[in-house]
Amino acid sequence: MNHSSSDAIVTALREWITAAPAGAQLPSTRALVAEHRVSPVTVQKALRVLAAQGLVESRPGAGTFVRAIRAARPHDYGWQTAALGSPQQRLPGLSAAMRTTPNDVIALHSGYPDRELLPERLVRAALTRAARGEAALGRPPAAGLPELQTWFAAELGTSMPPGLAPPSASDVVVLPGSQIGLSTVFRALVGPGNPLLIESPSYWGAILAAAQVGVDLVPVPSGPHGPDPDELDRAFAQTGARAFYAQPNFANPSGAQWSPDLVETVLGIVREHGAFLVEDDWAHDFGITADPVPVASRDDHGHVVYLRSLTKSVSPAIRIAGLIARGPARDRILADAQAQAMYVSGVLQAAALDVVTQPSWRTHLRALRGQLAARRDLLVDALREHVPTAHLDAVPQGGLNLWLRLPESTDLPRLVRDCEAERVIVTAGDEWFPAEPAGRYLRLNYSGPNPGAFPDAARVIGTHVAAG
Amino acid sequence: MNHSSSDAIVTALREWITAAPAGAQLPSTRALVAEHRVSPVTVQKALRVLAAQGLVESRPGAGTFVRAIRAARPHDYGWQTAALGSPQQRLPGLSAAMRTTPNDVIALHSGYPDRELLPERLVRAALTRAARGEAALGRPPAAGLPELQTWFAAELGTSMPPGLAPPSASDVVVLPGSQIGLSTVFRALVGPGNPLLIESPSYWGAILAAAQVGVDLVPVPSGPHGPDPDELDRAFAQTGARAFYAQPNFANPSGAQWSPDLVETVLGIVREHGAFLVEDDWAHDFGITADPVPVASRDDHGHVVYLRSLTKSVSPAIRIAGLIARGPARDRILADAQAQAMYVSGVLQAAALDVVTQPSWRTHLRALRGQLAARRDLLVDALREHVPTAHLDAVPQGGLNLWLRLPESTDLPRLVRDCEAERVIVTAGDEWFPAEPAGRYLRLNYSGPNPGAFPDAARVIGTHVAAG
Repeated sequence: MNHSSSDAIVTALREWITAAPAGAQLPSTRALVAEHRVSPVTVQKALRVLAAQGLVESRPGAGTFVRAIRAARPHDYGWQTAALGSPQQRLPGLSAAMRTTPNDVIALHSGYPDRELLPERLVRAALTRAARGEAALGRPPAAGLPELQTWFAAELGTSMPPGLAPPSASDVVVLPGSQIGLSTVFRALVGPGNPLLIESPSYWGAILAAAQVGVDLVPVPSGPHGPDPDELDRAFAQTGARAFYAQPNFANPSGAQWSPDLVETVLGIVREHGAFLVEDDWAHDFGITADPVPVASRDDHGHVVYLRSLTKSVSPAIRIAGLIARGPARDRILADAQAQAMYVSGVLQAAALDVVTQPSWRTHLRALRGQLAARRDLLVDALREHVPTAHLDAVPQGGLNLWLRLPESTDLPRLVRDCEAERVIVTAGDEWFPAEPAGRYLRLNYSGPNPGAFPDAARVIGTHVAAG
Repeated sequence: MNHSSSDAIVTALREWITAAPAGAQLPSTRALVAEHRVSPVTVQKALRVLAAQGLVESRPGAGTFVRAIRAARPHDYGWQTAALGSPQQRLPGLSAAMRTTPNDVIALHSGYPDRELLPERLVRAALTRAARGEAALGRPPAAGLPELQTWFAAELGTSMPPGLAPPSASDVVVLPGSQIGLSTVFRALVGPGNPLLIESPSYWGAILAAAQVGVDLVPVPSGPHGPDPDELDRAFAQTGARAFYAQPNFANPSGAQWSPDLVETVLGIVREHGAFLVEDDWAHDFGITADPVPVASRDDHGHVVYLRSLTKSVSPAIRIAGLIARGPARDRILADAQAQAMYVSGVLQAAALDVVTQPSWRTHLRALRGQLAARRDLLVDALREHVPTAHLDAVPQGGLNLWLRLPESTDLPRLVRDCEAERVIVTAGDEWFPAEPAGRYLRLNYSGPNPGAFPDAARVIGTHVAAG
């Protein structure tokens, strides 16, 4: 490859491009070869350089074209200010937990498990099979692939004690991820301007969905063992709310798991107020030293609307959740979900079902338990050693996160910045509070990449907590 | 395999199951082999029979369990009536166009092309490659895979005349299908209780999304050549609306394509009223005797919000749409889309990009043109022969549908029923009207399965139109 002759073509073509309209087709490779008396390889190299500079784009099979360059005149979108008006709801942005970060940091901020914790082989095999099958070209029913509906219903049904009627497949609505499930449920069961009780702290995605729908969040204080039932009862009575959103197993961020007694108490309160419990069972596959027991498995009167996601345990690419609701509530939810998304990709549904029905899925989950336990304990020990003034209300029995309380004097934004300067990425707990934060917290994910660096990360956090 | 011994085990186990609680584990295969003195194959056969009867379920790696039977007592979900209250918006159900039908009918009702019109080989290969790649386990940015954003921007950019600034990749938001795009745009740019102008007739999915968001639809009469500009101007002036939803190329259902003059006129009206045109370019890949020219390619001031779906032309399993908007409108839309869906499966995005950047994608689209032309003409000719009292305002130059006007005296619901009784599935046009239907219409899809039966279908329709 002759660099200088390729450079000469680049220079010549840049001149040509300056005079050409956007979208003009460049001379063919053959013509350039003839004109400049160079090899096709040299021409191709020149075109790649121009493409990398954003000046041209090649369209396979068609040729190479002048890329339109954004005009120099500043764009005037000012008219949109009046057209848009003030937003009806002010949406918070995506959480810092959704940030993608470079590889050379210690990332404790994310909500997603590292790739090494995913069933990679199962996922790739399932997607490959789905690519060959019916699902690659078909359109599944709006409520979901019947076999996947059956699986979601059976999963919940197996936790139900004798005497309670398990859900049927037709009670299941398959959704393209649980986020859309949250907004659908909040819209279908609560509606704009109406109160929704929520644990405080609680999952930021639910707080975001509530803001989008325009429901009024009513925080119910929740500690390391779950919500305070007296406060819950009072909140229902005072607001007339008809729904309570909660994560009864390994809550994000606190890790709390409700005791069987609390489950019965909360269910009693919910029933008494003729209300719904919206149960977000996000960590069903992430039990470590305890097994998750869905509250929905203790109710067959349609009080619990149950949401289970496979995104985090199977793969972020297989964005599938199952929602289980009974009675008219299910019909309202399905109508909203249909208006929202029409139906869910059959490929993703088939692949999800394939993964979770393989014998090695159970093997994977058992191995995952051990990995999560080791990672959790490593981070807990490191924090105890290096951040002695911080406090863990409880070591979670499952889930992916530690909820670390820092001294009240901590300047949280500064701590986050100082840690990031040393390449330790953490998120301030404030985003997990629907109203004023109840303290200075960090949510630390122990399922991210590179657990060997947890002690280093704890040391960095400890240094800056001590300095602050 | 010994049928009678297998039957004996079935009988014995049915008794055992009747006495056992739901969820109880059955004796192991080994124990049953010993107890009944039969082969493991016979035991497995008996278990399969019980599973098929819904009495047990096997969980691979765990064993076989008694399935919970739905309790006989009727469920009382009556409490939900008060909890749910009246719906804030009454959502219409899914359109009859979404019905799945058996293979032995002539289906003219669907909105989706038959599988034989899809690029099956490309889709399967793209999904297989995506299953092997990064996308199978990664989480793409919220606005979409950068390469796919770039592709959507370039597609629109290539239609832009010199002098206009093409969109950039960052103006693109990748969405899990265009339906979610419609509700996101209506919510972000219009908002509940505010007016939205819409062609009448128009796409039922847009009417549904508008109902869900709670915007007030204002119909603007639209004929075989597009909307009436005077009516559009008057509707903007009278309602103060800030947005107009339309399908300028091969509108569903009418097939109308706006002339270049009408494009300029409508853009002028939209600009004058400081408003948005929400352009739904659903049929971009379905030009037959004309090429689609997006109105968005004639505007660089952010007045056109452009929505392009790949679902119908690539595969219903690859549910991907690209939305292009500029200025603050884009930020509002992205914030809503994130709150709604967080991000879109990377596998679907990678597969979509793979398909549309293969050289054979262009080859496929060229062949598709010919197929659609032949199907369209076949159905048009058959209708002219067999339904002489019906009227086609225009033969569409693209898209998938004919919009057939029937005599005013037609009893439309009865016609639909009578045709269905003869296994010809058609949908009444009423669902395409945001308010009162302007006439008796059928929307007939010529891209469904079995085009050879179109003459038969036309004969059936003709018989019942004549009889009615």
